[in-house]
This record gives sequence, C-alpha cells and structure tokens, in this order.
Amino acid sequence: MKKFINSSDTLLDESLSGFAKAHADIIQLSRQPYFVKRNIATLPGKVTLISGGGSGHEPLHTGFVGFGMLDAACPGQIFTSPTPDQMLAAAHSVENGGGVLFIVKNYAGDVMNFEIAAEMLDCQNDTLLISDDISFAKTHSTGRRGVAGTLILEKIVGAAAQQGSDLAACKSLGDRVNLVTASMGVALSSCTVPALGKPTFELSENEIEMGVGIHGERGRERMALSSATEIVDYLTKAIDIELKPQSGQTALLHVNGFGATPLMELHLIYELASQHWEKSGITISRSLVGNYTTSLDMAGCSITLSLLDEEMLRLWDAPVHTAALRWGC
Amino acid sequence: MKKFINSSDTLLDESLSGFAKAHADIIQLSRQPYFVKRNIATLPGKVTLISGGGSGHEPLHTGFVGFGMLDAACPGQIFTSPTPDQMLAAAHSVENGGGVLFIVKNYAGDVMNFEIAAEMLDCQNDTLLISDDISFAKTHSTGRRGVAGTLILEKIVGAAAQQGSDLAACKSLGDRVNLVTASMGVALSSCTVPALGKPTFELSENEIEMGVGIHGERGRERMALSSATEIVDYLTKAIDIELKPQSGQTALLHVNGFGATPLMELHLIYELASQHWEKSGITISRSLVGNYTTSLDMAGCSITLSLLDEEMLRLWDAPVHTAALRWGC
Repeated sequence: MKKFINSSDTLLDESLSGFAKAHADIIQLSRQPYFVKRNIATLPGKVTLISGGGSGHEPLHTGFVGFGMLDAACPGQIFTSPTPDQMLAAAHSVENGGGVLFIVKNYAGDVMNFEIAAEMLDCQNDTLLISDDISFAKTHSTGRRGVAGTLILEKIVGAAAQQGSDLAACKSLGDRVNLVTASMGVALSSCTVPALGKPTFELSENEIEMGVGIHGERGRERMALSSATEIVDYLTKAIDIELKPQSGQTALLHVNGFGATPLMELHLIYELASQHWEKSGITISRSLVGNYTTSLDMAGCSITLSLLDEEMLRLWDAPVHTAALRWGC
Repeated sequence: MKKFINSSDTLLDESLSGFAKAHADIIQLSRQPYFVKRNIATLPGKVTLISGGGSGHEPLHTGFVGFGMLDAACPGQIFTSPTPDQMLAAAHSVENGGGVLFIVKNYAGDVMNFEIAAEMLDCQNDTLLISDDISFAKTHSTGRRGVAGTLILEKIVGAAAQQGSDLAACKSLGDRVNLVTASMGVALSSCTVPALGKPTFELSENEIEMGVGIHGERGRERMALSSATEIVDYLTKAIDIELKPQSGQTALLHVNGFGATPLMELHLIYELASQHWEKSGITISRSLVGNYTTSLDMAGCSITLSLLDEEMLRLWDAPVHTAALRWGC
C-alpha cells in the first residue's frame, strides 16, 4: 500500500486537523467527538442541516459545511458510519431554534446511527434520506444507495434553509430533489482502505466494474474495458430507464471523479454524457465536473443527472461558501 | 492502460469540448488552432495575460482563464508544448491595447515556442518565466522547472492586471513572486501517457521518487517509502535551503495533488507542512489544498511555499472567477 500516511490510526485526526487549518476562515473542527461546523453564526430560526458519513469520500461532507449549505458534518472513520454522539454533539452546537434536518445517505449503518440520534435529540428534527444510486433497482433489500447526488441535495436544501424555509419545507424539497436525481458509477480500479492495506476488490487489466458503490461494493456487472463512448452509453441509458427524463426538461449534469481519475478524462465523460442527453431534447443548463464524492484512491467516475425545476435551479445558483463549492460569496 | 478514452488522437479535443461546455459561462474554446479565452470583455488598456503548456496538468492552465486571472490559455498535446500559432491566435483574439504578458513554465519546448510567438507578435509584449521547482539547483543546465507555483503567479499577476497595472509592473511583480516561491514534489507512482500506453517510469512497491517532475521526469533521489512525516520533512527542508524563509514572514502554503492522491492525504500533508513552518516562526496566512497542477494519473503531491508581502496577499485575495479558482465573484 502506497499512501501518504503515518498510521491508519492517526490518519483521520491528522487529515481533519489539516482540513480545519486550511479552511479556518469557513469552518472549525471539534474533537471528542469529531464534527466540523460552520464559523459564521446563523439567524435564529434557520433550519440546521447536519450530514455525515464514513470518511474517505472527501470533500463530501466536511467540504460542504459553510454558508448556504451544511451547518455541520460528522466524519466517521474511513468507510464507517459516524456515531450518534457525534450527531448529537453537532446538533447541540449548531441548532438555532429552527430544528434539525439530518441528511443521510442510504446505508444501513448511517441510517441506524442517525435514527438513534434523531430519537435522542430534544428538539424538532427530521431526516432526509438520499438514494440516488440506480445501480440496483428500488426493490433491493435496503433500497438504493446514496452517492454523488448527495451534494446536489445538500446544496439546494442548504440554500432553501439559508433563505428561511422551515423544516417541513426543507424536508419536502429535499425529497423532491432526491426523486429527480439519479446516479451510476463505474470503477477502473479498486480503492485501498488504509487499515486493510490491500485493494478492496480485484479487477484484471481488462475489466471494469459497472455500478460500483462508493466503498468499492460490487456493482451490477463486471465487464470488459471498452471505449469511453460505450461506457457512457451504458451509464446514461441505465439512468434513462430509472429517471425517465423527458424532452424539454432542464437538468444539472454532474460528472464525479472517484479520486484517481484525471480531470481530462472527466471532461471527456461530461462531453459524451451531455451529447447523449442533448440528443434526447434535455437542456443541460448546469454542470459540475470534478472529484466531489470520492472513494479514496479509486479510479473511476459516476454520472449524475438531476432534473431540476426553476425553484431548484435558483437555489442551486444561490451563494455558497464552503471549502469545496464556492460562488456568489 | 485503463483510462476513460476513445482514442489518444481524439482525447484532447473531446476533453476540451467537455470543458468548454461545462464552463460556457466563463470561457470559450477556439479550434484551429486551439486556445481557450475568457468570455467577459476587458477594459481597453488592460494587460493581457496568456499562458499555456502541455495538456495533462488540468486544471492548469485552461482552468485559470477568466476574470482576475488569465485572458487566454493555449493547451498543447499531452505533455507537449503548444505551438506559436496558438499563442499568436490567442493574442490576436484577446489583446486589448495594454500589451501581452506571456506566462511560461521553464521547459525548453515551451520557452522556445513562446519566444517565437513573442518575436512575431506585432504589439508590445513581455514574458514571465516560472521556475519554482527547487528539486534541481539553479545551476542545472536549463535552470529550474516551473511547477505548482505557476498558479500563484497567474493569480497574483492576474489580479494586478485586472486592477490596471501596466505591462512593466505586471512583469516586475511576477518576477518578484517567482523569486519568493519554491516547490518540490514526490511521486508514489508514475503517470501513464495515453499515446504511450504504459507508465513513464517504474517504481517498485516500496519506492518513491523525490523531486519528480510534473511530466514524470526523474527527480533528485529514489528512496524507500517512508512515513508521511519523514516525506514532508524531506520536502520542507529542501525548500528551506533554497527559499530561506525567515521567522516573522507570512506565507501561502499550497499542497498540490498530482491527480491520483486523495484529498484526505493532501490535508494530512498540509497539516505536517504547516506544523514545520509554524515551528520556524512563519505565519501560514493563506492556503490552497487540492489537485491544481496535475500529472495525469500520477499518485503524489508537491508542496509550495510562497513568501508573499502585503501587496501580493491583497492581490491573492482579490476576486477571481475561473473554472478552478473562484472567490469574491
């Protein structure tokens, strides 16, 4: 295993320390238990948005804490859910009279721990479950997983909360964005979890994993490496089957790198995916290309299409000031 | 070779097309010859900044075209200098009465081609040479290479040009920033150039390349893989010997990923490097952590220290609106 690391036991703490120092103008880190919260005070009554999940997906979620997006994020150990005490400590630290909306990717551990925190929390709260990964059908035992579409929900609901929407409105908006957002990924290589020291799965020189999960979970199908056009064709058609975009609709197209894929290739994927949907009469009016929901050092990418209405587009465009997304501020 | 690619002959065009589409609000792409230019018109008399170099280092340089930074960038084929016709076409397209400052990383091919363009250009122009890589001493035949410090010059000089500094002032400012900026990198793995289809160099499971170039050039020393603390110690001390930072000085610390190294590890490197300089009495008052000057799919990173004075810090903080750097806009 080749990584910049002192010990897998200290990696998370050292990395969070560096993150907090590099972005001290936006966020601050609390330890015992770990959470990251925004610096700038919010107006009393603003709905508080708290997300979290296993580490190893940076900049998700800590990189999205700040004005117009999350109020706090709880990082777990690598690919491991944070614990309820983190969520409670974060909530007690940032809640400001408007209640708490927990934003949770649909994984058993995350769902369970956020549920415990929600039950223990002594203020109004609700939970937004994200399930944009269409690699497996909705009938899969635990339902769809939450992947790169997460940041789209966090951005749009974050803007609504910043502008004064109440808890019920934020929850309802988030559910609607989740319904119109679909993602699917493909891996060219596995990631290596530091504590394990070897690749999570093996792929031969000629194989790719279609529908891979962001922790290296098995996908739909292991296939022979093919051209970028064929790969994008597979992913976009799979999204079409689930999302059913209609000619005339407007969309945000997000091409997300898993951590080890060059921007040059991500822009090529963006070009091919946008061609596909433009041919179907979809207007790609917003875009995001880069490494946002990563899987440590995995080579690969995901494509997310989000069919946003005018209100959602306006909220996407609203000012945001976080470590990983910043505009209008 | 595992990449998202259709053909190495079409990769650059497809990727630039996607880049231009994804950032159509900021830049536009010209073909025959290739260059990327900013959308927003400049005030007559503003100094025009044009950079460029081989592709494969994205977001450098195309990702830095826009308000407050570059007016145009000329992308060459992968790891290959752009040609003088690109630079001339870009200059003719964006020059606005204030003359042209070419910003050139110190590589033989880039220097030669920009020199030809400068000689042929029928307007006032000058060239800013970047040589921040301290891996090799200044006495090396062609001098130091230009690496991740490049974007710092482009940002600071870009802000000065935006605020009305004339050509001589921009050139002089850039030279001063170059003198106070030092970088050094380390590779954990080679990159793979698509047209070649195999790694540029071989490193065993236990080896790292200290002082590697951003095209995979040999560095100072091939060493055994060691702890992150030992690696940062090597890099920061090498920078200290060349840059000689003094207690009480203020600096920008930039940790740059080469393309395949997770943000989690880059933040750990940032933490260790900032500890090193804080112990020496240097105030790290600005920071930038992420993949900005990449080497395709190389795993590794570089550390850049830039000892900025008050004027340079003010220009670093000035508004910028490009694909890869954006604040205050």
